[in-house]
Amino acid sequence: MSIDAAMPETAEAAALEITTSEITAAEIEAGRRAHELDRAHVFHSWQAQGPFAPMTVLKAEGSLVWDGEGNRLIDLSSQLVNTNIGHQHPKVVAAIQEQAGKLCTIAPQHVNDARSEAAWLVAELAPGDLNRVFFTNGGADAVEHAIRMARLHTGRRKVFSAYRSYHGGTHLAVNLTGDPRRLPNDSGDSGVVHFLPAYPYRSYFGSTTEAEETERALRHLEDMILLEGPQNVAALILESIPGTAGIYVPPAGYMEGVRDITRRHGIVFIADEVMAGFGRSGKWFAIDHWNVVPDLVTFAKGVNSGYVPLGGVAISDAIFETFRERAYPGGLTYSGHPLACAAAVATIGAMREEGIVENAARLGAEVIGPRLRELAAKHPSVGEVRGAGCFWAVELVKNRDTREPLAPYGGSSPEMNQVVAALKAGGVLPFANFNRIHVVPALNIPDELLLEALEALDRALDVADGFVED
Amino acid sequence: MSIDAAMPETAEAAALEITTSEITAAEIEAGRRAHELDRAHVFHSWQAQGPFAPMTVLKAEGSLVWDGEGNRLIDLSSQLVNTNIGHQHPKVVAAIQEQAGKLCTIAPQHVNDARSEAAWLVAELAPGDLNRVFFTNGGADAVEHAIRMARLHTGRRKVFSAYRSYHGGTHLAVNLTGDPRRLPNDSGDSGVVHFLPAYPYRSYFGSTTEAEETERALRHLEDMILLEGPQNVAALILESIPGTAGIYVPPAGYMEGVRDITRRHGIVFIADEVMAGFGRSGKWFAIDHWNVVPDLVTFAKGVNSGYVPLGGVAISDAIFETFRERAYPGGLTYSGHPLACAAAVATIGAMREEGIVENAARLGAEVIGPRLRELAAKHPSVGEVRGAGCFWAVELVKNRDTREPLAPYGGSSPEMNQVVAALKAGGVLPFANFNRIHVVPALNIPDELLLEALEALDRALDVADGFVED
Repeated sequence: MSIDAAMPETAEAAALEITTSEITAAEIEAGRRAHELDRAHVFHSWQAQGPFAPMTVLKAEGSLVWDGEGNRLIDLSSQLVNTNIGHQHPKVVAAIQEQAGKLCTIAPQHVNDARSEAAWLVAELAPGDLNRVFFTNGGADAVEHAIRMARLHTGRRKVFSAYRSYHGGTHLAVNLTGDPRRLPNDSGDSGVVHFLPAYPYRSYFGSTTEAEETERALRHLEDMILLEGPQNVAALILESIPGTAGIYVPPAGYMEGVRDITRRHGIVFIADEVMAGFGRSGKWFAIDHWNVVPDLVTFAKGVNSGYVPLGGVAISDAIFETFRERAYPGGLTYSGHPLACAAAVATIGAMREEGIVENAARLGAEVIGPRLRELAAKHPSVGEVRGAGCFWAVELVKNRDTREPLAPYGGSSPEMNQVVAALKAGGVLPFANFNRIHVVPALNIPDELLLEALEALDRALDVADGFVED
Repeated sequence: MSIDAAMPETAEAAALEITTSEITAAEIEAGRRAHELDRAHVFHSWQAQGPFAPMTVLKAEGSLVWDGEGNRLIDLSSQLVNTNIGHQHPKVVAAIQEQAGKLCTIAPQHVNDARSEAAWLVAELAPGDLNRVFFTNGGADAVEHAIRMARLHTGRRKVFSAYRSYHGGTHLAVNLTGDPRRLPNDSGDSGVVHFLPAYPYRSYFGSTTEAEETERALRHLEDMILLEGPQNVAALILESIPGTAGIYVPPAGYMEGVRDITRRHGIVFIADEVMAGFGRSGKWFAIDHWNVVPDLVTFAKGVNSGYVPLGGVAISDAIFETFRERAYPGGLTYSGHPLACAAAVATIGAMREEGIVENAARLGAEVIGPRLRELAAKHPSVGEVRGAGCFWAVELVKNRDTREPLAPYGGSSPEMNQVVAALKAGGVLPFANFNRIHVVPALNIPDELLLEALEALDRALDVADGFVED
């Protein structure tokens, strides 16, 4: 049989034939109805509602998702970088089903076994003496409560937060955020002071080496604190590895320096691990890459892969002491939700049993890192690749010398849209932000699927190369 | 057999013998372990962590819960007034289990059938032209996003909110709150202006009739708006029937007046239905008691009885139009979470099939209301009973003439503690706030259990009567 004889009439038909085998016509029809209802009634995050054209997801399993036409895609996004154990992990699904049959919900003031167990496991995994856990519904409210704890613990009000950061979508959390999503929400009165982070590839300090960046970024931070008055600064919040803002791994010595500065000035150091935590970077918490114990750790997403909404704050003994005899003036109806906590217990259990964190480290060191460096060597559009575990960024540029990004900070560009479209056409569900493609698969993605996705990235970078200016 | 012969050696043993039949020794032992882990690792909402002595819940079914010793209690609290369909409703449990097996989570930017269906159902139930739904994780972030929508829609910043109100625990939401939980969190810069609500029993306006209260409270509200400058006021947020703050049903004409004032001044009217909504007051939304259509409705709790964390904002066509071409600058990872939305679809379905909202109205009109009025006539400690559906407050006083409360505003008292203890000893899990006992059972509580709980309340009010001063 010649290739020509096997070709269907159109390329579209070919795609359909190849990929819809796992999805039925009835499922596609149900997806169409879901799409109609969505456009009529669902108000979407971060979007202009009119032109928004959402993709339907009919099914998701492991590292695969199927879109509304039944096309199979390799999930290189982990959705919003939360499905660390992939989609529909059988152990976690079973645990949710079992807990649902037992007790879905109970008020936060009561003792519940799933909640107790989850708190114990998180405390056990958390660094140092972070022995208590306050559960929330997600990352944003975890951050809100961490700031409140820090303010009440110190009796101070200002909070330091980095530019090029993301800390959540509620009022205070989005004001802490240092990416453009803050700007339309900037209340100007949140008590937040933004400082410039260590970001070697695009140094704000004119550094040419990592060591120089560390030294200059730390000096800048301490200068800012001294100018704002350390006696006024309650907390410093920092993603251990900034996520959506660029997965720019802090240079050696930086986190230790931040810890040192905050300790010297009596400032609560909050490590935001909402995206970086629970194995994403190849360690349970990204802060574990350094010899640093923060005072508070915020988490969400990976704690139960987002199977049930859950977030929280791990709390040091010293901050706990502040609230031993004094009431903590905060709370929420679903704090320590049994269904969410049962999912966390099962997720942590599965991650341990299956060596999922170790696998993330291996994938980073042996598959993603080496392959991305090959792609960087091959494609002139790649300015830098960086990351750890299953947490990598590919920064695309028009010019490697000037480092001019393929899309401006805070925006998209026709060029980036074409690169993303090429990735999707290559069968990948990508995570893109400004001029970056993030490689953030599930930590247990099979090697062959990961390599297939990186092949598609290779081809998409050919498209990006077309935009490189001499 | 004489009564004496049947008596066990101690009263404690009797309680254990009578009540532990449904709970095994192994379950009690597991509960002890959960209690230990809780005290070692769980940080609780709203508490001083040291002295806090939480109750263990081993099991919950319908309107019954079993504590750590195996005692059966009638749940008159609906936990935090959220389990509107009671504990472990089989249809909703089954729907959660089915959705868990199908698809636990998917990012908010995709179309998902459970999310679409839930949005459609909520839009269908919501008053007027509130045709779009933005889903959140709970009530607090629903309120945060509603305020953001209102501010961006109007281009104004100030927000009016009532004293004696509760709007959630995150930074902005707790600043909107008008109960004492705001005070330790008051940032003084949230752009919130608190006004005095219509509260006939303790009128801030010296009113002696409901009509007078309506007229004076509305005049006060409009005076405040005029003094603050209507051109600066983005939104007014008001619980349709204030919940934890006292279930004080607005007097006739008040809500219509608020709608009129806000419309005349171009102020977004947000009805907070987090506690009052989804049948609690005997109608789908409490605002439906009046001929009023707000611009935004916030909801959570009853939407799926809290079986999976979920909240949201129902959005008018006019506000939707603001974000048709302009991006809405807010969002969250779990917006429209499939598991939470599937639980909402099943909850709304069960409520419709089983006439649960109609039942709540019947219970209010035929059981709770009449019985509470009898108790008020009988017990001098009862200052007032008020409510609707399964949403009632019993206000306890030392003196009916002076209306001096049995516990001060914002605090507890030994007297109230004794009343609450008597209710628990009578086999009831109560909801108490300051000087009030709230009667807030599941909307489908069996009449006989409800009557049993009201009998226990009757006996507890004997205790309260002992504190009445002549």
